[in-house]
Amino acid sequence: MTAGEPVRETAGGTSAPPLEWLFHPRSIAVVGVPSADPRGGNFLRALRALGYDRDHQLYPINPKLRETAGLPCYPSLLACPGPVDHVISQVPAHAVPELVEQCVAREVRSLQLFTAGFSETGDAERAGIERRALTRALAAGIRVIGPNCMGLYVPDERIAFTGNPPADAGSTFLLSQSGVHAADLIFRLGAIGMRFSKVVSYGNGADLAAHDFLSYAAEDPQTRVVGAYIEGVPDGPAFAQALRRCAAAKPTVILKAGVSEAGARAVRSHTASLAGSGRIFEALCRQAGAQLVETMAELRETLVAVTSSARRVRGPRVVMLSSGGGVGVLATDAFARAGLDVPELPTPARRELGSFIPIAGTSNRNPIDAESFGGRGLGEGAAERRRGILSAVARSGVADAIVVSPGIVQGAHGSRVPWSDDAPPSPTRDEARSEARELASELAAAQEEAGCPLLYVGRARIWGDLGPDLEVERALYARGIASYESVESAASVLRRMLDWRSRRAGLPPLS
Amino acid sequence: MTAGEPVRETAGGTSAPPLEWLFHPRSIAVVGVPSADPRGGNFLRALRALGYDRDHQLYPINPKLRETAGLPCYPSLLACPGPVDHVISQVPAHAVPELVEQCVAREVRSLQLFTAGFSETGDAERAGIERRALTRALAAGIRVIGPNCMGLYVPDERIAFTGNPPADAGSTFLLSQSGVHAADLIFRLGAIGMRFSKVVSYGNGADLAAHDFLSYAAEDPQTRVVGAYIEGVPDGPAFAQALRRCAAAKPTVILKAGVSEAGARAVRSHTASLAGSGRIFEALCRQAGAQLVETMAELRETLVAVTSSARRVRGPRVVMLSSGGGVGVLATDAFARAGLDVPELPTPARRELGSFIPIAGTSNRNPIDAESFGGRGLGEGAAERRRGILSAVARSGVADAIVVSPGIVQGAHGSRVPWSDDAPPSPTRDEARSEARELASELAAAQEEAGCPLLYVGRARIWGDLGPDLEVERALYARGIASYESVESAASVLRRMLDWRSRRAGLPPLS
Repeated sequence: MTAGEPVRETAGGTSAPPLEWLFHPRSIAVVGVPSADPRGGNFLRALRALGYDRDHQLYPINPKLRETAGLPCYPSLLACPGPVDHVISQVPAHAVPELVEQCVAREVRSLQLFTAGFSETGDAERAGIERRALTRALAAGIRVIGPNCMGLYVPDERIAFTGNPPADAGSTFLLSQSGVHAADLIFRLGAIGMRFSKVVSYGNGADLAAHDFLSYAAEDPQTRVVGAYIEGVPDGPAFAQALRRCAAAKPTVILKAGVSEAGARAVRSHTASLAGSGRIFEALCRQAGAQLVETMAELRETLVAVTSSARRVRGPRVVMLSSGGGVGVLATDAFARAGLDVPELPTPARRELGSFIPIAGTSNRNPIDAESFGGRGLGEGAAERRRGILSAVARSGVADAIVVSPGIVQGAHGSRVPWSDDAPPSPTRDEARSEARELASELAAAQEEAGCPLLYVGRARIWGDLGPDLEVERALYARGIASYESVESAASVLRRMLDWRSRRAGLPPLS
Repeated sequence: MTAGEPVRETAGGTSAPPLEWLFHPRSIAVVGVPSADPRGGNFLRALRALGYDRDHQLYPINPKLRETAGLPCYPSLLACPGPVDHVISQVPAHAVPELVEQCVAREVRSLQLFTAGFSETGDAERAGIERRALTRALAAGIRVIGPNCMGLYVPDERIAFTGNPPADAGSTFLLSQSGVHAADLIFRLGAIGMRFSKVVSYGNGADLAAHDFLSYAAEDPQTRVVGAYIEGVPDGPAFAQALRRCAAAKPTVILKAGVSEAGARAVRSHTASLAGSGRIFEALCRQAGAQLVETMAELRETLVAVTSSARRVRGPRVVMLSSGGGVGVLATDAFARAGLDVPELPTPARRELGSFIPIAGTSNRNPIDAESFGGRGLGEGAAERRRGILSAVARSGVADAIVVSPGIVQGAHGSRVPWSDDAPPSPTRDEARSEARELASELAAAQEEAGCPLLYVGRARIWGDLGPDLEVERALYARGIASYESVESAASVLRRMLDWRSRRAGLPPLS
């Protein structure tokens, strides 16, 4: 499914998932654009920045404005000159019932309520407004996203809810009851090169909820991986069924919030969701073959893993390459804590490594301590030694995964530190990219030779420009290699992949 | 103890700790400076960069050179024109016995063996060389640091082992069997403003070992906090005694490596240490009132905690302020997992918060979701709202700790992203510093009013210049406020401080 295909015509047909039309509105009205912002407020700005209005209709609505951000502005939904598929509501809660009436009159297909202040306030009257508005909309066949949410990011249709997301599409589908968490995932995973098929921030989930989006994602041919931030599910059995379908077909990673008593109370205040029992949720995920995580960091790390070679790890034996013996020692403890092995290398491999690694101050047993992994520019022959070491490890036959870490920290090697203005200039973006590509190609070749996943643990950054180090992560990810911030993260991800694989043993292979 | 005091004259006296002289050599010889590096290799470069040779004698030694880095170079230790207190050895392992003889002849007081390739190789002959050289040195009254280590960083004497560490001294003492980990701590903690009394990287610890340095740190008046990376202890009872003394007087944080079977093997290859039983070590730390941690991140986070207001947390009740409801929800789960409470705010405090926080899309119960915490430049009145909210929380009476998180991720707010060259310019360093100081002063005032620690969780950084966000962490740390990368880290640090306080209940108050 790519931009330009007439997917919207298939709504209700047999080939496209039932909700396909939701992600392809021909026209959007943003109701309640703020008078104070000449760029039309967050939603209009985001849609225009990505270019939605280049080949779709975009209608700002505000009775006090004649135009905003260079577009004609209409006094109400009823005044829009053409059909309106999708409405984004920025009006206050008390104005929503009237807006729903207008949506019915204009045969709107979907309504996203950015508007908050409904059931999540705990106020019975406000909850009543939400319920009645929802009932009216659903009776007229209008599906509702929200309330209290950011709505859609669909790169192929140039729909966005926040400024500056990647313009190109990918294959990760995200559903999130938090707009901040959705943005966190888009930007932080986007920064290393992950791209998204569709993202939906759906807040209270009063109508469309987790089971709808999981069912869609399960069938969406553009989606290969699914990530979710869920606070509660309104319909347990429907959720269980959708999760089973989705996780059977695609790697599905779920962050469930509100698992503690206090967290459940916070969930009620945030999206009026009933958090439910954490144990039941855990059992559901286990049975479905989905992966349940506890933190945003784990959600990001796991999504990186299932979209990289790390997903294919087949056993617990790790070979660790680093610069600095202490780094290898702590890595070994971290792998052991995660139930992984760090086997001693066989004699032939150690002998071969001996020609690249001097005996003094280093180890060739595993973990392997080799200065050559301490970064770029380590003098003549470092790249060659690195290649020799990687190749010897790759052929050792004892690795189910190879983890590589430069080990060093920025600052200790002449780069910029906050207590000194005397810093070497950062490399240009082109220089950084070209160095990053070289390292990535080296590591990808080693991975190929070893026939097992290689994982990279990035350099610690304390100051200065993040760009050069992120270029390394991007170049690696482009070649299917995952990078992590710490050895502990790499260890926990490998453990997670092995557990997931064994839990999925009875299920059909992933698509 | 500050620079310039005649501390070195007190060696063997009654007032200074027994090892005081070790940190104040009047002269250093670097033996085996490399011919290939016109700047004299790592050690000479680091010593000169910090300015050791401005008021001490510094002798490079290499028979093939007449001068290096602008200093006269001597053919051997015997040829040095004046007394030599401290020797740094960069010669190969086989040349060490002859060097020890020269040290004896020149009445050297301490010898640091950067030289590696001894017992850690597992080779009996090399272990024999180490043993015999050590015996000879000790018999002549020479104390040995190492082998296989980076040695000393003493800011007040302008001694350094790596380029570009902070030139000013502080009150944190570090001992580490890994040079890379020592540098990691100096640079990453240095970046937020922590400063060090003395740091010693001591590798194999064949002579001077953990118990010597802990005993010293316990009595050193310049030292208020102690951090250690330990792979093994040669003398269990001496270590237990020194740890008890040190932890009774000063917050003492220990990262013990080699706790797993594979880790213990890695430890033997790295520093020839016997890792010993992790359980016994744990019991020792618990009894002594020391804090045992498992990862470098925990070591750094705990050192930040014990040098900030976080150290004074008195109970488990946390009030969480963030921008973005989902951030607060996950924070609440994280606090609950750490055994902390997130109590609902009392009605008067909630009523007061109501005047700063609109009911729609936010919560004033705790966690508190307030857009005003989403960062700087949120429009008129944001700073004022922030102050009002902080003050209401401070006076609510239910907080044992306040945790503040902007919640947002870089990129989602118009800042630089890797897929676009169209980015606003970074603020200048002066602008960033001035904004950071303002926020820090606001948060410090709230902390003062609340009478309980405030902790800050930094903004997620994905690209661009790290400087502005680190200026915030620096400004906060300068006012005694700790910053963490994630709410999970803040939660685990608060838990750790509470546990540590209760374990120390029977001990005298800390100095």
